[in-house]
Amino acid sequence: MTSSTSPATSGTLSYEQSGVNYDLIDPLKVSAQRAAAATAVHLAQHGFSEVKASRGESAYVVDVGPFYIASIVECLGSKALVADEMAALTGRSWYEGIAQDTIAMAVNDLITVGATPLVVQAYWAAGGSDWFGDAARAQALVAGWKRACEVCQVAWGGGETPALAGIVEAGRIDLAASCTGLINPKERLSVGERLAPGDAIVLLDSSGIHANGLSLARKLVERLPQGWLTEVQPGLSYGEALLAPTVLYSPVTEGLWQAGIVPHYCANITGHGWRKLLRHPGRFSYRIHTVPPVPPVLRFIQQHARQDDREAYSTLNMGAGFALFVAARDAERTVQIAQALGVGARVAGQVEAGEKQVLIEPLNIRFSDDDLQLR
Amino acid sequence: MTSSTSPATSGTLSYEQSGVNYDLIDPLKVSAQRAAAATAVHLAQHGFSEVKASRGESAYVVDVGPFYIASIVECLGSKALVADEMAALTGRSWYEGIAQDTIAMAVNDLITVGATPLVVQAYWAAGGSDWFGDAARAQALVAGWKRACEVCQVAWGGGETPALAGIVEAGRIDLAASCTGLINPKERLSVGERLAPGDAIVLLDSSGIHANGLSLARKLVERLPQGWLTEVQPGLSYGEALLAPTVLYSPVTEGLWQAGIVPHYCANITGHGWRKLLRHPGRFSYRIHTVPPVPPVLRFIQQHARQDDREAYSTLNMGAGFALFVAARDAERTVQIAQALGVGARVAGQVEAGEKQVLIEPLNIRFSDDDLQLR
Repeated sequence: MTSSTSPATSGTLSYEQSGVNYDLIDPLKVSAQRAAAATAVHLAQHGFSEVKASRGESAYVVDVGPFYIASIVECLGSKALVADEMAALTGRSWYEGIAQDTIAMAVNDLITVGATPLVVQAYWAAGGSDWFGDAARAQALVAGWKRACEVCQVAWGGGETPALAGIVEAGRIDLAASCTGLINPKERLSVGERLAPGDAIVLLDSSGIHANGLSLARKLVERLPQGWLTEVQPGLSYGEALLAPTVLYSPVTEGLWQAGIVPHYCANITGHGWRKLLRHPGRFSYRIHTVPPVPPVLRFIQQHARQDDREAYSTLNMGAGFALFVAARDAERTVQIAQALGVGARVAGQVEAGEKQVLIEPLNIRFSDDDLQLR
Repeated sequence: MTSSTSPATSGTLSYEQSGVNYDLIDPLKVSAQRAAAATAVHLAQHGFSEVKASRGESAYVVDVGPFYIASIVECLGSKALVADEMAALTGRSWYEGIAQDTIAMAVNDLITVGATPLVVQAYWAAGGSDWFGDAARAQALVAGWKRACEVCQVAWGGGETPALAGIVEAGRIDLAASCTGLINPKERLSVGERLAPGDAIVLLDSSGIHANGLSLARKLVERLPQGWLTEVQPGLSYGEALLAPTVLYSPVTEGLWQAGIVPHYCANITGHGWRKLLRHPGRFSYRIHTVPPVPPVLRFIQQHARQDDREAYSTLNMGAGFALFVAARDAERTVQIAQALGVGARVAGQVEAGEKQVLIEPLNIRFSDDDLQLR
């Protein structure tokens, strides 16, 4: 459970203007986090204990003796609404990609702590039984879910397919995934202890917006001359570009382990964009010397929402979907392993001693600790 | 992922008349189940394997060597809508109980396979940020969630609190819980191999409707003279009676283990009522000689929905929230252990060789294999 602050620059379309008011959610999150932390003692009744450092991380970790267990539940968010709009306009189902997005939300968070994802459960809550009556759409969801499980080498354990008329809106579906994995052997645990000045920052490419920033992207469509069908580049509509499925990064973290590389820290770059590089609780500076190319759909959003670089990089992934902090000697090999697995990657910067900040030198952007309050 | 058939008796209010059409959901479930089963092979890549018999059970089980891991995600369903109606009528928040219901949906399923629940994750998807702005309601949800974790001795790992305007209806919340547990030692695994003729059936009392059958219960309110405030007994309104929190049964299964009793099989009695006694895949007869007292709210629903006993017991729990199938010699001690933990219990019948059927002798009801198709 994370909280956020978003910059609101006058004249631009900011994330908060797109409809999510964190001032209302944050007090609940704080009290839920406190209550949750107080429940850790129960594990002792079973002879186990939590990994306390995982409480601020993207997945929760329990020490069960021979290895650690990590678990998580993650929501897709509002990307399915874009799929619904595009289905109405194109006659195609886009739910195969939506399934991948949903699994990516869970798996890409779970792997940050060093876990190998093992089991995914599906949570597909529809606004009524009739959602499942559109066979093409339902089968696309099933096919995409299965394929994402193949890519991540996880077992699809089962799930829930409730019809929730009165809670979920008619014709809509609330999608989420839970994921359980093992950190095995225990040396793979990655909750921050290893991070140190001199470490390299390797950024893995995103495929587009992934599944964060969709409220903003949906709000923006009102400003576009041809709405969802406005081209972001010749032959590629805004809607289709938004629906590029989120990259699944677990093959990369597994590939690194097989090559003997244990990341010193990982950050899944989701909401809050590059401010997520500040996720580690320690005091370090993150100096970025190289930024990845910006996917056309993200450049398009930045331009039409009239965001300056600082706001865009503080909200969207801007081409970097996942950050690996590795020993400097492992940096180039990390890039090679990712690329061999079909995931673009580059050595983007390094960790330094000093004030807690991200310095994106090519863009003259600085994010400080004040820009991200996750714990 | 389960499918169902419901009887539709003319003149009564059946479950299907209350708005859930399984004919639309079932084809999806079947293809999802097939696709999910095909993903089990991926576990071998990690040196593990699924417990195949768990595929038809209430939780999914993986063999990771020193023990088994069980995991699940479960939805509350529509009970929160009753809480919202009663909040409007009484000015009280009912979300403390709703939190317990949500955790019960996950925990009571997870324990059927012999697992000790360890970690619960919260999935609280609201129709907008403003849901969380009602501090009393939000804090009740947090308090109830924490308390249920205490009862079950699980750690609350974290969760998701998305604001999903456009997917979840304004003013509503879609609640679910995921749960991960261990079957440790491995002898506690309970996926059906041990069940045998001569075993006793111990039924644990429910507290009321629990969280299944609420669509029917909500539909029924239209027929009641004073709606939610109609009394089911002096001083107890229909709405309040419905909102009695679901019993958490994990203290009982843990207590049994500590006493050296390993159930031969378990069934969580949720949707499909007593037909869930047919859950085990084998060919056995389940002869019931004693039924528990029916909670007033369930008797009230049966009467006002004009259901005969057969329909009522095929839809609602009718006082039995959980079934333990134990060796005959352990039956009385099982009852004593449950009662010592504050959960009403009784030896209700026994398992016999023969046709697959449930015989509820005091009521002259028979359910056969045709009445429940879960796999």
